[in-house]
Amino acid sequence: MNEQFSSVLLERAVSEFAKLPGVGRKTAMRLVLYLLRQDTVAVDAFADAVVTLKHEVKYCRTCHNISDTDICRICANPRRDASTVCVVENIRDVMAIEATQQYHGMYHVLGGVISPMDGIAPGDLEINSLVERVGEGGINEVILALSTTMEGDTTAFYIYRKLEKNGVKLSTLARGVSVGDELEYTDEVTLGRSLVNRMPFTGKQQ
Amino acid sequence: MNEQFSSVLLERAVSEFAKLPGVGRKTAMRLVLYLLRQDTVAVDAFADAVVTLKHEVKYCRTCHNISDTDICRICANPRRDASTVCVVENIRDVMAIEATQQYHGMYHVLGGVISPMDGIAPGDLEINSLVERVGEGGINEVILALSTTMEGDTTAFYIYRKLEKNGVKLSTLARGVSVGDELEYTDEVTLGRSLVNRMPFTGKQQ
Repeated sequence: MNEQFSSVLLERAVSEFAKLPGVGRKTAMRLVLYLLRQDTVAVDAFADAVVTLKHEVKYCRTCHNISDTDICRICANPRRDASTVCVVENIRDVMAIEATQQYHGMYHVLGGVISPMDGIAPGDLEINSLVERVGEGGINEVILALSTTMEGDTTAFYIYRKLEKNGVKLSTLARGVSVGDELEYTDEVTLGRSLVNRMPFTGKQQ
Repeated sequence: MNEQFSSVLLERAVSEFAKLPGVGRKTAMRLVLYLLRQDTVAVDAFADAVVTLKHEVKYCRTCHNISDTDICRICANPRRDASTVCVVENIRDVMAIEATQQYHGMYHVLGGVISPMDGIAPGDLEINSLVERVGEGGINEVILALSTTMEGDTTAFYIYRKLEKNGVKLSTLARGVSVGDELEYTDEVTLGRSLVNRMPFTGKQQ
């Protein structure tokens, strides 16, 4: 006699939302009921944005970043430094780095990291295209901006081995105590590395 | 030079998701990127569920619960007790009560509670239709299952005044210590009420 869902349409919409990561049935219900309260134009715009994105989005031929055109806005920007390429795992990392406004070079999106546990081999990633891109010349520095996980380190090392003969300068992100962090709560590996890699103190903010 | 969104399509989809309640830009991005990784059929199904719900959903003519038909599954079920009507604020409350499997009567969904602060007057709610429904006869008991907030209490009292001459039995949910709660952490109002409304102890689980 339990008729929690008096509407099959509602049940279906809730089930679809509940498939999203981190969204349980209760949250899904809340989101669907919110949409139901909006006017039809708003709901259609919501659905259309999702469908259009999926059907029309492209990936940049050069850096594999998400794009509306064959070459993305970053690669097509003549004001950016084409001699520096920052290698990242995914497009969220591109956005995180862009948000810092500290980087003006190009990107190369791998599409993941090498992870035998998840069945991700080097061939599944955009590593060969990176090696080719560097081989074509014009790139002086490759910044490996990967996660400090075992998979990230493995991938960085794999790329290092592929590029070391190439003469290109390879660098990685500085590791150290986070800005705003208190020393006593910093984990010992990070704190140890930040001591080993200590920097000259110039009196200016770094 | 900040080009966080290299795709306008992506930006639009993220903006649409970020309009949902409790969804910030970061969560919106995570959800959109998740959908982008799914195949086209799955994304179309997601969008279609939302659009179809909005365009085709109905509200039950009798109880105003969400429904796919003019009369909802609960009102149309001959095995349910049509002489008892449970008055609730919204369809989520119907689902919460249905989930308990303890109630086999009908519902009446008000669509909110009286709240002068939010500009919700009795006329904005399905109160007149409730009074009419009770006036038509066949209903012995009306259970006021509203929130224990000032607005909920006000609404319950308003309905009580409208129905008291009708001879229908009016009841409300039992208030007391929640199952699984420790006494020392129960707020004093609830604990006080549960003492005043104490029940005979029969040795059986209540």
